[in-house]
Amino acid sequence: MVKRPRLDQMRHLSRGVLEKLYRMFYEKGPGGGTFLALPFDQLVEHGPAHEFKWERSAKPESVIELANSGIFSALVLSVGQAEKYQYDLDPQVPLVVKLDGHFYTGKKNQANYPRHTMFGRIETALRLGACAVGLTFYLGSEDTGKDIERISQIREEAHSAGLPLILWSYPRGPVPDATKADSLLWCHYAVSAAESIGADIVKTKFPSVVEPEKREAYEEYILKEYVKKIPEAERYIELEPPKKLLQAYAEEMKRKGEKPNYDSLLTKEKHIERARIVVGSGTRTFVIFSGGPKVKGDAKAVLKEITEIVMEAGAEGRIIGRNFWGVPISEGIELARAVAEVMKRYKRE
Amino acid sequence: MVKRPRLDQMRHLSRGVLEKLYRMFYEKGPGGGTFLALPFDQLVEHGPAHEFKWERSAKPESVIELANSGIFSALVLSVGQAEKYQYDLDPQVPLVVKLDGHFYTGKKNQANYPRHTMFGRIETALRLGACAVGLTFYLGSEDTGKDIERISQIREEAHSAGLPLILWSYPRGPVPDATKADSLLWCHYAVSAAESIGADIVKTKFPSVVEPEKREAYEEYILKEYVKKIPEAERYIELEPPKKLLQAYAEEMKRKGEKPNYDSLLTKEKHIERARIVVGSGTRTFVIFSGGPKVKGDAKAVLKEITEIVMEAGAEGRIIGRNFWGVPISEGIELARAVAEVMKRYKRE
Amino acid sequence: MVKRPRLDQMRHLSRGVLEKLYRMFYEKGPGGGTFLALPFDQLVEHGPAHEFKWERSAKPESVIELANSGIFSALVLSVGQAEKYQYDLDPQVPLVVKLDGHFYTGKKNQANYPRHTMFGRIETALRLGACAVGLTFYLGSEDTGKDIERISQIREEAHSAGLPLILWSYPRGPVPDATKADSLLWCHYAVSAAESIGADIVKTKFPSVVEPEKREAYEEYILKEYVKKIPEAERYIELEPPKKLLQAYAEEMKRKGEKPNYDSLLTKEKHIERARIVVGSGTRTFVIFSGGPKVKGDAKAVLKEITEIVMEAGAEGRIIGRNFWGVPISEGIELARAVAEVMKRYKRE
Amino acid sequence: MVKRPRLDQMRHLSRGVLEKLYRMFYEKGPGGGTFLALPFDQLVEHGPAHEFKWERSAKPESVIELANSGIFSALVLSVGQAEKYQYDLDPQVPLVVKLDGHFYTGKKNQANYPRHTMFGRIETALRLGACAVGLTFYLGSEDTGKDIERISQIREEAHSAGLPLILWSYPRGPVPDATKADSLLWCHYAVSAAESIGADIVKTKFPSVVEPEKREAYEEYILKEYVKKIPEAERYIELEPPKKLLQAYAEEMKRKGEKPNYDSLLTKEKHIERARIVVGSGTRTFVIFSGGPKVKGDAKAVLKEITEIVMEAGAEGRIIGRNFWGVPISEGIELARAVAEVMKRYKRE
Amino acid sequence: MVKRPRLDQMRHLSRGVLEKLYRMFYEKGPGGGTFLALPFDQLVEHGPAHEFKWERSAKPESVIELANSGIFSALVLSVGQAEKYQYDLDPQVPLVVKLDGHFYTGKKNQANYPRHTMFGRIETALRLGACAVGLTFYLGSEDTGKDIERISQIREEAHSAGLPLILWSYPRGPVPDATKADSLLWCHYAVSAAESIGADIVKTKFPSVVEPEKREAYEEYILKEYVKKIPEAERYIELEPPKKLLQAYAEEMKRKGEKPNYDSLLTKEKHIERARIVVGSGTRTFVIFSGGPKVKGDAKAVLKEITEIVMEAGAEGRIIGRNFWGVPISEGIELARAVAEVMKRYKRE
Repeated sequence: MVKRPRLDQMRHLSRGVLEKLYRMFYEKGPGGGTFLALPFDQLVEHGPAHEFKWERSAKPESVIELANSGIFSALVLSVGQAEKYQYDLDPQVPLVVKLDGHFYTGKKNQANYPRHTMFGRIETALRLGACAVGLTFYLGSEDTGKDIERISQIREEAHSAGLPLILWSYPRGPVPDATKADSLLWCHYAVSAAESIGADIVKTKFPSVVEPEKREAYEEYILKEYVKKIPEAERYIELEPPKKLLQAYAEEMKRKGEKPNYDSLLTKEKHIERARIVVGSGTRTFVIFSGGPKVKGDAKAVLKEITEIVMEAGAEGRIIGRNFWGVPISEGIELARAVAEVMKRYKRE
Repeated sequence: MVKRPRLDQMRHLSRGVLEKLYRMFYEKGPGGGTFLALPFDQLVEHGPAHEFKWERSAKPESVIELANSGIFSALVLSVGQAEKYQYDLDPQVPLVVKLDGHFYTGKKNQANYPRHTMFGRIETALRLGACAVGLTFYLGSEDTGKDIERISQIREEAHSAGLPLILWSYPRGPVPDATKADSLLWCHYAVSAAESIGADIVKTKFPSVVEPEKREAYEEYILKEYVKKIPEAERYIELEPPKKLLQAYAEEMKRKGEKPNYDSLLTKEKHIERARIVVGSGTRTFVIFSGGPKVKGDAKAVLKEITEIVMEAGAEGRIIGRNFWGVPISEGIELARAVAEVMKRYKRE
Repeated sequence: MVKRPRLDQMRHLSRGVLEKLYRMFYEKGPGGGTFLALPFDQLVEHGPAHEFKWERSAKPESVIELANSGIFSALVLSVGQAEKYQYDLDPQVPLVVKLDGHFYTGKKNQANYPRHTMFGRIETALRLGACAVGLTFYLGSEDTGKDIERISQIREEAHSAGLPLILWSYPRGPVPDATKADSLLWCHYAVSAAESIGADIVKTKFPSVVEPEKREAYEEYILKEYVKKIPEAERYIELEPPKKLLQAYAEEMKRKGEKPNYDSLLTKEKHIERARIVVGSGTRTFVIFSGGPKVKGDAKAVLKEITEIVMEAGAEGRIIGRNFWGVPISEGIELARAVAEVMKRYKRE
Repeated sequence: MVKRPRLDQMRHLSRGVLEKLYRMFYEKGPGGGTFLALPFDQLVEHGPAHEFKWERSAKPESVIELANSGIFSALVLSVGQAEKYQYDLDPQVPLVVKLDGHFYTGKKNQANYPRHTMFGRIETALRLGACAVGLTFYLGSEDTGKDIERISQIREEAHSAGLPLILWSYPRGPVPDATKADSLLWCHYAVSAAESIGADIVKTKFPSVVEPEKREAYEEYILKEYVKKIPEAERYIELEPPKKLLQAYAEEMKRKGEKPNYDSLLTKEKHIERARIVVGSGTRTFVIFSGGPKVKGDAKAVLKEITEIVMEAGAEGRIIGRNFWGVPISEGIELARAVAEVMKRYKRE
Repeated sequence: MVKRPRLDQMRHLSRGVLEKLYRMFYEKGPGGGTFLALPFDQLVEHGPAHEFKWERSAKPESVIELANSGIFSALVLSVGQAEKYQYDLDPQVPLVVKLDGHFYTGKKNQANYPRHTMFGRIETALRLGACAVGLTFYLGSEDTGKDIERISQIREEAHSAGLPLILWSYPRGPVPDATKADSLLWCHYAVSAAESIGADIVKTKFPSVVEPEKREAYEEYILKEYVKKIPEAERYIELEPPKKLLQAYAEEMKRKGEKPNYDSLLTKEKHIERARIVVGSGTRTFVIFSGGPKVKGDAKAVLKEITEIVMEAGAEGRIIGRNFWGVPISEGIELARAVAEVMKRYKRE
């Protein structure tokens, strides 16, 4: 199995950082070294249409009511919401303050967001009693360089203040986008990059199968650019389903008029093997997944299945938002409990 | 009815901020938790042609004479005017210093103003005895990112200095402009964004009906981009008048040679329902409207009608400039009193 | 007549600023609240070819000899010259240090100068015993925003140091240039903008008649853009000579082979009326003109006539350079005395 | 032979810098004034595909195990790895912290990286007990100017903190790339530039023969641009193999279907002569090579041969990464020992 | 004759600056108010190919050996060389530290260098015991504005630290390049600009005759742009050789197949007259020339002749590099002595 870092190996972290990691990984949520977070930064990222899901949906008040249930390792809030609702959140719930963000205002505008924007500072997080701060990193954007310098500075400030840094590490930009940003190649690099930047926890997307439309670009990039530097990089292609199989499946689905689910072309074991490579690059960085391969079943079954896959791959846990707060609170609690139960089976010593 | 924040829920604000909000919402103007402000930043935004309205029009002196009448919750001045006329304004009139602005010098130049420019600093506002500071935010402009960082910094400084922040939150830029910047979609997001940035009061435009010329772009953006992220976003289309009705009305008006008033296609109740959605996103942010649906009648009747609509929707109040100071002072006072009277009927406990 | 600000109304200025304004407006030069300055920043703006005018022309030494005559309210020097010649200037002559500037290196390069460049700082001016500092503002350039922030910062520093700020406020950039930068429309806005930025004295150009080549653009901008925001803006067109008259005159001059003087199409009274509008926007800002309508006569007669026009319009005074130091010193003194004599007739109480 | 700087000539360096240089050049590694470093910044530069080389490949843990063997003058780590593994590295192993870097995300993105990005600061290096800091300089990139200012600042900070600066000096950008970046011309300039910037140690690439595809551009640049400034620059062409010989060899290889090795057209003596010119520009800067001319033989033989060439040329040593850690640890140790043995034959008094 | 500034007129300079100017102009080199400097910043500007001139050429060591001969008013070194060789330079030799520079990496890259780059700071110069600091100014480049602000800041710091500022003032950019950057027009402006920026010493190029290829652009710029502002600017054309003569000479040379020397079309007296105009703009700035009109003869005769011309024109001296250190040391000393002897004939009282 993939080797995972232990808190007692983290001698480079101050007691301030360690006690906060301990609280989130051992004292709260499923515990035993695992991590289940409830994020609520979607008003910033997607806008308030989430409010139309159910009558109290996407109101900070109801999300906090859910968080106060005590099931989660942490609640993630944007600066504005964290500021305004700090006294509504129970003091025993670890709060992660997402310090940056960007408002989604159309694809046309995306090019103008090669990096996230700071909504607050470390001082803001300290004042709010944060248990960690979160930042987003776009690996491969036109602004990757400046982004690293921004993050490196916040990392130093966070560590000086005894705060862990969680990095939302997302491949993004001309090359990742053209070759599938959440492919094995890029998810692997995203975790490795987060370790090189010095994150304590990295949130990565689950590595998906490259769809036929991008497969050629994926192979071309690897064979013509990457293999020149590192011949072994061909393995990223070997770990995809055979090209012919992929093509055949795509055509079949087209014939049937069904939406293809390319992840279904890999076995659960294969998904775990690939996720293990991704997780393995976090040699001293905890790895948290959002999403997972598309599996079938009802909401609870799917959530449990994916949780099993990522935990088998060695990951420390997951971060799950809309599945929990996009439904009425009692339902959200039931789903969260189910996921937590799975995680408890993967406790570390 | 939409749930509104109360001052005593605002535990995250220092006493310095709270006592100034209290002064504007309870002690001055219509009071009882409502807000009626007189803005005079139009010399900056539009240039001095306002001076041609009546013989003393758009002179700071006469605007201040109006403000000294005591009808308003606050007077809003740009930095230059606030500096030069600080001793002319009665000490009991709350002064909001608009710290940024931009001079209008033609559409061609607009592209060069993706954000407002700072005319002064928090220290300037403190020296002037300000009761709040104002900033403008362009949601969706090419510079949204840097704009947020600018505003976030001023917000922290303002709060440290015990000053509330009023955000003029305007959708603007390639996507909002093409899909109607003051539509329900964007006004809703503008208030939500202001809350996420941590504003205390947000000034938004009233959500208007999308005209036929932009209706297609509006629907396309929502269906092709937004719904992918949030399926419920379709509701923004449902809340518009039916497309056929809109088209028929447009053609009728064209036939008649009259200027269409698309807001007339919605009932007063529908306007209130839509405004309630906008207001509702300000869960811990006071919401103030400029403008309103086009209704018929004389100036006083119209001002009263719109005030009723926004107050019914749950808003805290309005900000009205040229309607008040663009006419001789005695007239302005009469109109302002009429609006204040309406607001008094919507006092909060 | 246009209402002018009085020093004793300027309660917002510190004693440090007021005593320097007093020195320039009352103790030195023509006095009685008027202002006649001798500028010598032309080496920076135009290069040293001025040296070819007469044998000692454009040498700081001879300009200072002229300034030491005691006729002027102030001498304006660029930072380099002010530094190097500080001990040559008599201590009783008020010195205005022009803190910014730009070297003229061809039209092609103009686009690279959307704003002036700082040659020195407030500290420089203080060390040099300055009576005021000068800055140039380009209203309408691509960089207007940053320019305002630069000027706002210097204004705060100047006021903190007890130094008045004189703003050379020039419309410039894509729209002003295309619609005549020194037209009534733009000169009016330039003075208003200077007041909004918080200048103490504004130097503006005299508003000229829009020539036939730009008249269409002028009207189009006002009717299609400006009038939408402010209907009264049409008055800027009404105050120009009738279009037909303008055209007829242009054709006549072409027929005669003479250079047209479009300012001659307005009466002296009309020029005064227009200038009064410009001056009137400086409600708490002293207004100084450079240039004036083209009138006929010898140098002295012309200088006197224009001075009468601007003083009748309510302006505080003028700033005149090459007319004074571009001729041998004794001639320069004679001309300056003639202008000062006119000003003395317009003393304020 | 080429004259080399001695530590006792380095009177301009503080004791803090000197004692660290002494430790790396005399106390550790092959010693006697030579230098053999093990770099591990490839996760940053190339991504984690290196992990596929052997089962524990490219894990910081195994690289550090290799470094702890004590064969090397220093281990070079990126900031993230240095932070996280600082306590795993034996205290007696000198640690060079590479303070900047950039993630490789495709050629398309290269244009966005005209300079390296800071991952940490001098304080980071000090806290980690660094023996030196490393930076990368791109001579000839669009951003060369800003890059120099960045490096100059770090150099001053490093020297103030008693830390030597190692400069990875790489020609790069429109002109170097088109005329062969690792040609004699550019490697010579890269070392000279590093000396002018004030580096203590410069890492340069070995100067290779210009291939036929770039020979014309190389000559044209030298003859049309460089020789105008310095006629003697023609020597850079004289030191290449004759053009006809180069062309003939290229055609022969094409005929044979073999990959050409243009470096084979120069004798070992000629390679040494060229390398001496490169080394000679480091009159007070230690010169370290990466790479070398392509010679034949097994890994160990090749490593030894190239080491002999660079040491004969007067260089202080080499920096070798993937050849050592890309193979299992025991193999890596054997190869490193072989290189160190060669270096020991070139000890300085 | 042109009036020159005297040290005792420089009352605006602190004793710290004056005593250093005195040391260079009176105590060292030819003395008597003259100036002969040996610059060695060419490794930065041109690269190390200078090393191929003679066996020890362009090594800091040998240049310093030459400087230690005591013939020069000052030695100019770049920051890197000044740092590394500070203890090799005799303490009695005044050291000018050139604080900025740029590496020449091809014409294509020039556009990327609209200004020089800082290699060090005033603190660097102070630590090195500098007698002055040097900076380069590009008048007319796209970045002229920022360049002035950079230089203005260093000037203030230098003066505060008692260090004179020498400005290498070079016209450069779209307009100067197209109209001959080292023509009379631009050299005159370059000296005037240096005075306006506040330099203590300006290094200018000698004004050359405009070649036929640029004559039209030169005249067009002056007649169409400059004369509009300053009619007297036509004199820059009058001071060139007649156009017909220039053309005839160009054709003759072409017929003969000889390289034309357009400077030969002006008499020595005419060259002196033109140079006097250039020098004359430095009314409180010492003027130093590099280069001179092309005259015939052996190296020593030419150096002497040009020195006579610039000293007759009133300049304080010259700065000569490659002519001195590009030849073996004994030759360099002989040439330098010859130049110094000429200067001694132009001692000021």
